[in-house]
Amino acid sequence: MNFREITDIFRDNDNFLILTHKSPDGDTLGTGFALCYFLRDMGKKANVVNSDSFPQRYAFMYEDYQPQEFDPEYVIAVDIADPQLIGSSLAQFQQPGTVDLCIDHHVSNKEFAKLTYVDANASASALIMYQLFKYTGREISDLTAKCLYTGIATDTGCFKYENTTPQAHIACAELMAYNIDFAAVNRKMFDVKSRARLAVEQAVTSKMEYFFGGQCSMIVLTTRMIEECGVDPAEFDGLASIPLQVEGVKIGITVKQRHENVYKISVRTTEDTDASEFCRRFGGGGHIRASGCEIHGDLETVKAKLLEGVRELGFDD
Amino acid sequence: MNFREITDIFRDNDNFLILTHKSPDGDTLGTGFALCYFLRDMGKKANVVNSDSFPQRYAFMYEDYQPQEFDPEYVIAVDIADPQLIGSSLAQFQQPGTVDLCIDHHVSNKEFAKLTYVDANASASALIMYQLFKYTGREISDLTAKCLYTGIATDTGCFKYENTTPQAHIACAELMAYNIDFAAVNRKMFDVKSRARLAVEQAVTSKMEYFFGGQCSMIVLTTRMIEECGVDPAEFDGLASIPLQVEGVKIGITVKQRHENVYKISVRTTEDTDASEFCRRFGGGGHIRASGCEIHGDLETVKAKLLEGVRELGFDD
Repeated sequence: MNFREITDIFRDNDNFLILTHKSPDGDTLGTGFALCYFLRDMGKKANVVNSDSFPQRYAFMYEDYQPQEFDPEYVIAVDIADPQLIGSSLAQFQQPGTVDLCIDHHVSNKEFAKLTYVDANASASALIMYQLFKYTGREISDLTAKCLYTGIATDTGCFKYENTTPQAHIACAELMAYNIDFAAVNRKMFDVKSRARLAVEQAVTSKMEYFFGGQCSMIVLTTRMIEECGVDPAEFDGLASIPLQVEGVKIGITVKQRHENVYKISVRTTEDTDASEFCRRFGGGGHIRASGCEIHGDLETVKAKLLEGVRELGFDD
Repeated sequence: MNFREITDIFRDNDNFLILTHKSPDGDTLGTGFALCYFLRDMGKKANVVNSDSFPQRYAFMYEDYQPQEFDPEYVIAVDIADPQLIGSSLAQFQQPGTVDLCIDHHVSNKEFAKLTYVDANASASALIMYQLFKYTGREISDLTAKCLYTGIATDTGCFKYENTTPQAHIACAELMAYNIDFAAVNRKMFDVKSRARLAVEQAVTSKMEYFFGGQCSMIVLTTRMIEECGVDPAEFDGLASIPLQVEGVKIGITVKQRHENVYKISVRTTEDTDASEFCRRFGGGGHIRASGCEIHGDLETVKAKLLEGVRELGFDD
């Protein structure tokens, strides 16, 4: 597939339904709403849907959005690598033959749609969408530009992560020509935390433990701690990056209780340590810097197993 | 002054001494070391000096740097807006006529050097230096590129702040063509904290107070708290951004005790509130989003004055 063919699809169809992935993030929503606004500006009808509700923190992308009345004729999935990620409320689109086109940047894309455009070198799906819009030669609105910027900024950790490419920087340099208040977007995406989230971070950080001369750090979240915080469980997402934020730490471990004697382990590492190798010895796996596994047993046993594993990686006191 | 004249200066002189500002940050060091390596690659002698020691967190820019033996013939200050910022250990260069050239991006530059090149639209001094190097047409080394990237990334908060320009993005897109492991640089600059810093943040965040229905937050640092933490006072720098990180907060106030009954106030605000106006009523001032002042009195009186000031800005419960 190429941009020419996608442009023809936009021209030849009407009444587009745009699917974004469940537990939506800035890239799937930024790409989805940008495409929706772009198609509407072409005079087409288009809606964005999600299996979950759109999170309030992304409201600046959809606060003036109104769903349109129509029977969907063409279904486009954005930033969705696997039909599972469409989510249960939209389960009808998990069936083969129900999604017409998928535009995505995940190398793991399962090619579940009738047509698939994947650019695994793109930092974000929003970057592909921006390049596609440029290809068409059509003007885009400030709001469309803001959605695209948000997608690229969030998926690259504000240009901080390894997946940031020169193309991502150049696209955002060009998007800054629109009236988008990128600094306010970044503040909302990267700096602002809810009071509940702050309390949760406080709770886990205050009990962080250090091992092997500070090269390994560990935080533990028991179901009891989660209950005691009395906040939405979503506030506990993404804590796994905390242990690695401490200077000198090479392997940061997050132990999260699922049930009695069942713990979900998230491991993050710096350059020298292979998180995937570490987790494989516990039946898990993942990426070289971010992996996970599940260990059964009481908390003390689980911690002892993990520390023994760290020692076997070559760490000592 | 233009790039042509600076290029002539590089060609016509030898034995360069490069001054960076006291309490050095990523931009002054990135610009300074980049210039030093560039001049050495031209066959010149060059050293970088600072009134303070070079902080360990920037070691990746200078770990293979060795001072050269020579009598300085040409003195260049980088990222230094005011001779005060040269610092007491290099006080001889605070005298008029001792600095030959200053390259800087601060609009407030006092033009204290014999020659001054200021581009106040540049996001960072390192961005000016990059554009200058490009102008010369000379190759730069990977290490020089890494220093320039660090300067631009740190002064823009990793492309997050309002001062980020399209030119900053484009320069970094180009610098990524060098072998610089920008993700490791960003991790070190933006994600990693010392255990002492983490403890300090814990201490102040756990006692954060909220007023006016959560629109105002305040942290207090007494000299006793600072002593009790038992860490290097430098660990207490830059805490003023913490109160504003909480969702819903529009004015974040940091109260730091200097002496008995003397408090330094730092104020940070979001779009709707003028921090400078707020601080002016206490005899201080600054920028619209970041200002400061000093208030005398006991802690309760100081807090009451501040909250009365917030109420007068139009905040209510």
